[in-house]
Amino acid sequence: MSSLERIERIRESGGWLERYRHDSATCRCPMTFSIYLPPQAEQGPVPAVYWLSGLTCTDDNFRTKAGAQRYAAELGLALVIPDTSPRGEGVPDVPERYDLGQGAGFYVNATQAPWSEHYQMYDYVTRELPALVEAHFPLVPGLKSITGHSMGGHGALICALKNPGAYRSVSAFAPICHPTVCGWGEGCFGAYLSGDREAWKAYDATELVAAGAAPIPLLIDHGTDDEFLPDQLYPQDLEAVCRARDFPLTLRMQAGYDHSYHFIASFIGEHLAYHAVALK
Amino acid sequence: MSSLERIERIRESGGWLERYRHDSATCRCPMTFSIYLPPQAEQGPVPAVYWLSGLTCTDDNFRTKAGAQRYAAELGLALVIPDTSPRGEGVPDVPERYDLGQGAGFYVNATQAPWSEHYQMYDYVTRELPALVEAHFPLVPGLKSITGHSMGGHGALICALKNPGAYRSVSAFAPICHPTVCGWGEGCFGAYLSGDREAWKAYDATELVAAGAAPIPLLIDHGTDDEFLPDQLYPQDLEAVCRARDFPLTLRMQAGYDHSYHFIASFIGEHLAYHAVALK
Repeated sequence: MSSLERIERIRESGGWLERYRHDSATCRCPMTFSIYLPPQAEQGPVPAVYWLSGLTCTDDNFRTKAGAQRYAAELGLALVIPDTSPRGEGVPDVPERYDLGQGAGFYVNATQAPWSEHYQMYDYVTRELPALVEAHFPLVPGLKSITGHSMGGHGALICALKNPGAYRSVSAFAPICHPTVCGWGEGCFGAYLSGDREAWKAYDATELVAAGAAPIPLLIDHGTDDEFLPDQLYPQDLEAVCRARDFPLTLRMQAGYDHSYHFIASFIGEHLAYHAVALK
Repeated sequence: MSSLERIERIRESGGWLERYRHDSATCRCPMTFSIYLPPQAEQGPVPAVYWLSGLTCTDDNFRTKAGAQRYAAELGLALVIPDTSPRGEGVPDVPERYDLGQGAGFYVNATQAPWSEHYQMYDYVTRELPALVEAHFPLVPGLKSITGHSMGGHGALICALKNPGAYRSVSAFAPICHPTVCGWGEGCFGAYLSGDREAWKAYDATELVAAGAAPIPLLIDHGTDDEFLPDQLYPQDLEAVCRARDFPLTLRMQAGYDHSYHFIASFIGEHLAYHAVALK
């Protein structure tokens, strides 16, 4: 178990928003995450909702712009907010691209050089990070749900679909629903996982549902004015495979909303309330 | 009446977050502001709460980080969010200082060169901007309240204290309560208003109350762990003059909170609910 260095502690909505750095055994570099502990955590362990962020984000975007902490405080939920990739001087990157390398881990375990040394985000968010935070904070062991935005919405969906029983509930904001057929996904999967498109399907929500993933209800919001909806997100593909299998999907097309945190802020309260029910 | 150019429109919490640019007659340069129109504004005119931001901010910080829009949507309030100073190539600035010039208008009417040409923020926020937005948006004319943070908390207090009856209510987050005796205030007032300290008192909440300002209840929150509390904010000075006059002040020292937007996000709902009562 790696040690934690607390690098920030801020009072918010009666609880504490904290940021930590630790040496990740999975990603083989220092990793940073934020955690919000609601007031109820001072009385005893609480459930946790994991938030996976989108391209270009760190752990800071969500905690600053989503307004989630006040709902977490009301509902008695911890928020666990990892970074979107390994980072640092020794970590491969493509500085001229926002959609590959640092800030774009895509929540997969890379198998290809030079990425495979550090880009092990799937194992990091599903195994190392939960074990770490459950050992160090007042969280109910194993009692967790997951959500996220865009690339992180994709991440939330695959984490839940690939780990039956590990998450009590899952939701997503504007997720990349079918990454193996969109530019963002092709770019990252091609780099991290080789050109073997069959290997990509293990990290694709639409393909996982089509291949028989165990049912778990999926709550998904998309904005109808999201600039990335036509070319990157493909909710219609996920919807089609769910319909074919009678897989439980609640897909809400929210009229007029875009891809920004203003969209997330508008519905994060509903999502957290949804998770709170599943976590009680 | 200057014309408005809409430069952004984002759906949020059932309403619209919009940003405009206009040629300001008061500041003699283009000015930018944001406005949030709640869903109720589609049915008819709504009251407005003005938000004045702090040093270094533009209109973007509050709308992105405070989480106010969801409360405004629930309460049926518009939010009017001006910039903190005139800006642009022709506008004087001290680029190496965050606390003077652009981003630091201090909500006063400058009388000294080179500032007086454009730095007329007091008239801008109390006269030009309300007239402009009431002419162009579904707002109830004259039905407004005001709040803000730090330098903007100072601004909210002086706008209300200097204009009896103009604002139904006023509140402030970590306001600079006695600017004529703190470094931030001395720096700006000395530049904008000359070295005549008597002239400064017209823009100082503590001095205005001491000099007999008409009573209006003041709701003020400070964080006890605010790094600027000891040297810049001086709520104890405002409290002393209010006590001496029996001037209505609710001063809440919020344990453990700092000067950040996480503090604002924690209490903005209470403040907007307070204003909503006054505006009904």
